[in-house]
Amino acid sequence: MKDFSKYNTKELWNNDLKHNMHPFTDFSSFKKEGSLIMAESEGAYVFDTDGRKYLDGIAGLWCVNIGYGNEEMGQAMLDQTRRIPYYSSFGHLTTPPAVELSTKLASLAPKSLSHVFYGTGGSMSNDTAVRMVHFYFNRIGKPNKKQIITRTDGYHGSTYLSMTLTGVEYDHIGFDLAPDLVHRVSAPNVYRRPAGMTVPEYCDFLVNEVEQKILSIGPENVAMFVAEPIAGAGGVLVPPEGYHQRVAAVCKKYGVFILSDEVVTAFGRLGEMFSSEKIFGFTPDIITCAKGLTSGYIPLSANMISDEIYDVISVPQAEGASFTHGFTYSGHPVSCAVGLKNIEIMERMDLCGHVREVGKYFENQLIEKLSNLPLVGDVRGSHFMMCIESVANKETKELLDPNIAIGNRIADKCQAVGLLVRPLAHKNILSPPLTLSVAEVDFIVSTLHKAIIDVQDDLVKEGLWHG
Amino acid sequence: MKDFSKYNTKELWNNDLKHNMHPFTDFSSFKKEGSLIMAESEGAYVFDTDGRKYLDGIAGLWCVNIGYGNEEMGQAMLDQTRRIPYYSSFGHLTTPPAVELSTKLASLAPKSLSHVFYGTGGSMSNDTAVRMVHFYFNRIGKPNKKQIITRTDGYHGSTYLSMTLTGVEYDHIGFDLAPDLVHRVSAPNVYRRPAGMTVPEYCDFLVNEVEQKILSIGPENVAMFVAEPIAGAGGVLVPPEGYHQRVAAVCKKYGVFILSDEVVTAFGRLGEMFSSEKIFGFTPDIITCAKGLTSGYIPLSANMISDEIYDVISVPQAEGASFTHGFTYSGHPVSCAVGLKNIEIMERMDLCGHVREVGKYFENQLIEKLSNLPLVGDVRGSHFMMCIESVANKETKELLDPNIAIGNRIADKCQAVGLLVRPLAHKNILSPPLTLSVAEVDFIVSTLHKAIIDVQDDLVKEGLWHG
Repeated sequence: MKDFSKYNTKELWNNDLKHNMHPFTDFSSFKKEGSLIMAESEGAYVFDTDGRKYLDGIAGLWCVNIGYGNEEMGQAMLDQTRRIPYYSSFGHLTTPPAVELSTKLASLAPKSLSHVFYGTGGSMSNDTAVRMVHFYFNRIGKPNKKQIITRTDGYHGSTYLSMTLTGVEYDHIGFDLAPDLVHRVSAPNVYRRPAGMTVPEYCDFLVNEVEQKILSIGPENVAMFVAEPIAGAGGVLVPPEGYHQRVAAVCKKYGVFILSDEVVTAFGRLGEMFSSEKIFGFTPDIITCAKGLTSGYIPLSANMISDEIYDVISVPQAEGASFTHGFTYSGHPVSCAVGLKNIEIMERMDLCGHVREVGKYFENQLIEKLSNLPLVGDVRGSHFMMCIESVANKETKELLDPNIAIGNRIADKCQAVGLLVRPLAHKNILSPPLTLSVAEVDFIVSTLHKAIIDVQDDLVKEGLWHG
Repeated sequence: MKDFSKYNTKELWNNDLKHNMHPFTDFSSFKKEGSLIMAESEGAYVFDTDGRKYLDGIAGLWCVNIGYGNEEMGQAMLDQTRRIPYYSSFGHLTTPPAVELSTKLASLAPKSLSHVFYGTGGSMSNDTAVRMVHFYFNRIGKPNKKQIITRTDGYHGSTYLSMTLTGVEYDHIGFDLAPDLVHRVSAPNVYRRPAGMTVPEYCDFLVNEVEQKILSIGPENVAMFVAEPIAGAGGVLVPPEGYHQRVAAVCKKYGVFILSDEVVTAFGRLGEMFSSEKIFGFTPDIITCAKGLTSGYIPLSANMISDEIYDVISVPQAEGASFTHGFTYSGHPVSCAVGLKNIEIMERMDLCGHVREVGKYFENQLIEKLSNLPLVGDVRGSHFMMCIESVANKETKELLDPNIAIGNRIADKCQAVGLLVRPLAHKNILSPPLTLSVAEVDFIVSTLHKAIIDVQDDLVKEGLWHG
C-alpha cells in the first residue's frame, strides 16, 4: 500500500511556488495555480501527493519507456554506487559500465556508428554534435564549412546552440539565438501541406527545398543537416514515404553530414531500438539519443558517431592539443549502469516486439475512433508517438481562437478522470510507457473520445464554436 | 572483500578503445595506451579492475566531496526510484524531492538568491544563466545589453556557449566559439602578476581593468560578469584580498549582473556550502553549482537566481508566451533526492567544519613541505582546492619545455605508489574528498614530496634540467 500521509501537499505546493523555478512554464498562470505534485508511481500510473491516480499518457516526457516502479532499475543504481558511484572518463580513465554500455550501443546502432560520446541530456548531445562537426571541418582544413540546416518545428533542445537548432518559433520568443549559424527548411507537415499538392508532390517539394537551401548557402559552407525522424515537440510530424532517404542522398551528394535526433524515437517508441536505418532507411553520420536510453530513471544521453568522423577528430589537430570537449558527467558509471539495465529489461521483455503489436493497435485505434469527431482535424503519428490536432473547421483546417486553449481543455477533461495527455497549443500529444496493455490502450482511447465530445459540447454551450 | 575476478581488464580495455569516446582526451596517446579502468571504491580510495588501490587526490573530478561508497546515497536512489523515478517539472508539474531540495538550497545560498533552476551539469547551468539574463534584458526593453565579460583562464564548461565563456585558450584550439558575445579580462594570477607590482597594486590593476572593459563596451551593452570565486581548471587562481568585493561594486555601479560559478567551490571544498558571500564577501545575482551538490553520485546542477531576476523573467514577455527554456531532466526526482541526502550527510558530519580544520592543515602542509623544492614555483589554493606549479627556474618563473610533460611525470610517479593527482600541463591539481583524515593528508604530502624529488633527479639524469 502506498502511504500518502507523509506528503504535506500544502507545504510542498507553497515551497514549490517560492523556490522551484520550472522549465517551459507560463508563470502568469503558475503564480495563481502552482503545481500538481507527482509523488508515487507504478507501471503506467503516477499518483499525486493526495493519492489521485493517473494513467500517464505522456510517460513523464516521452521517456519512461519501461514504465514506473521497476525495482531492478533502482537496484542497479544501488549496486553500482556500492562499486564506484562516480569516476571521470576524462583523458585515459574509464569505468566498466561506461565501456559496457558503449559496446552495447555500438551493437544496436547502425554499423558505421560505433563510437559513443556521453552527455546528460538531449540538449547537451545536440550541442556536442555541432561542436564535433565544427572540429571535424577545422581539422580537414575546411573552416568555412560550418553552417547548419534545421527544420521549422524541429525541436533539438534548450542550450544556446541547441535552441538555435530548434525550429519551433514559439520557443524563441524573448530569447536570443546564436547568430550566423543556422538556416531553416520546412518541416514535413503532411496535414498542412500546400493546397492541391499530393503527398508525393509534397515530398518532391521538401527534398528539393533542402537541395536548394544547400546550393544557396553553398555546399562548401554547409556542415550538417539536423532532423528528427519524426518531429516530436513540433507536433509529431511524420514525413512522407521516402523523405529521409531522399534527403540523405541530397546531403551525401554535397558532402553534408546528417544528425538524426533520436532523443524521442530511439529505444522502442516506434518499435525499434534506433529508427533511422531500420524504419526510415537512411544512415546518419551522428545519432543523438537520451530519454528512453534510461527510461528517464537517471540523466544520460549519447552521441553515436560515425567511424568517418571519429577517425578525423581523434587525431589531435595540433602538436600537444587534444579533443577539449566534454562534461564531468560524460560516461557517469551509475547512469551507464542504469542504461545497461534498461536495455537488458527491454530485450528480455521484447518491448520492441510489444510496441510493434500494441503500439500499432494504439495508433490504429486513435485514428479509427477519433478521426471523425468534428473538432479533430488530424490524428497522426506512429505506434506510441501520437498527436491529435484540433481545428475549428475540418474542411478549411482553420484553428480555434488561441484563447480557447483547446489543448488545455482536452487535457483537463482527461486529467479529471485519471488520464494525463500533453497539451501543446491546439494539439495533444500522446507518448505513453511502451508497456501499455490493450486494456490500457482502450482506456486512453475511450477517455479521449469522451473528453473531446465533452469539450465540443462545452464550446457550443459557451458560444465559442458551432460544430 | 572486493571481488576483482569479475572484471576482464583486457576485454574492457579493448572495448573502451573501440567504442567509448572520452571527453578532454589526447587521442594520440590514448590510441596507444588506452584507459585505466576504475571499478571499485571506498572512502577516499578507488581501485582499478586489477585491484590496485589509489588514494584519490582528485575526488573524481573535484566532486566526490563526501567520499566513495556511501551506502545511504545508493539507498536514497533506490528509495526514490520506488516512489517515482522520474517526473517532468515542465509547466505546472513537480515532485517532492525537487521542491524539498529547492527549499534547502534557498536556505543555504545568499538570502537574495531564493529561486532554483535545475540542470544536469555545470556547462548546462552556465549556459542557462546567460540565456536567462538575455531574456531578462529583452523583457525590460534593453535588447542591446547582452555582452558578457569573462576572465582568461576561467573555466565555465563545454557547450557552445559555456566554452565561449571559458577563457582557457588551450581548450579553444580546433573548435569554434559563439561570435559577438564574450569579452575577456585578466585572470587574477597573483603568482604571475606583472613584475614589480605589489599584490595590492595588482588588485587595483585587475579591478580597474574590469571597469575599463565595461566602459569600452559601453555599460548599456554589458549584461553580466562571470567568474569563479577561485578559478579551478585554469590553475586554482586565488584572487587578491578584496578583489571580488571591489569587482562587484564596479558591476553594481554599471548595472552589470554577476554570475558566480561555484561548480567547484560550493558544497564544502573551501569550508562553506557556498563561498561567494561567506568567504569572499560579495553577493552575486546568480550562482551556478553542480559537482559537490550530489558529490558526483548522480548528475545534477542548479542555478540559484536572485529575486530581482526572477521577478522579471517570471512575467511572460508577450501575450500567451512563456519561459521556454529548460531540460527534460530539470528537477529530476532521483537526482534531487540524492542532492538532499548529500547535504543531510554533510551537515550531520559537519563536513564544512572538518574542511576548515583538516583542509587548512592540507593547505598549510603542502605550502610548508613543497614550496622550497627547486622545481616548485608556486603552491597555492585554499583548503581542499590546491595547485602546484612547476618551473624550470624559481627566480625567473620560466617554464620547462612542454615536451617534458612535467605535470604528467609527477602524476605518474604518484600513481605508481597509489596516489592520484591531476596533471594539467605544468601544474598538478589536488581536490581530494573532503573527508580526508590527517593521516591521509600526510600521505598525500609526503608522496608528492618524494615524487617531485624523484622527478627532479630524473630530469637532471636525462640532461633536461640543471636544478
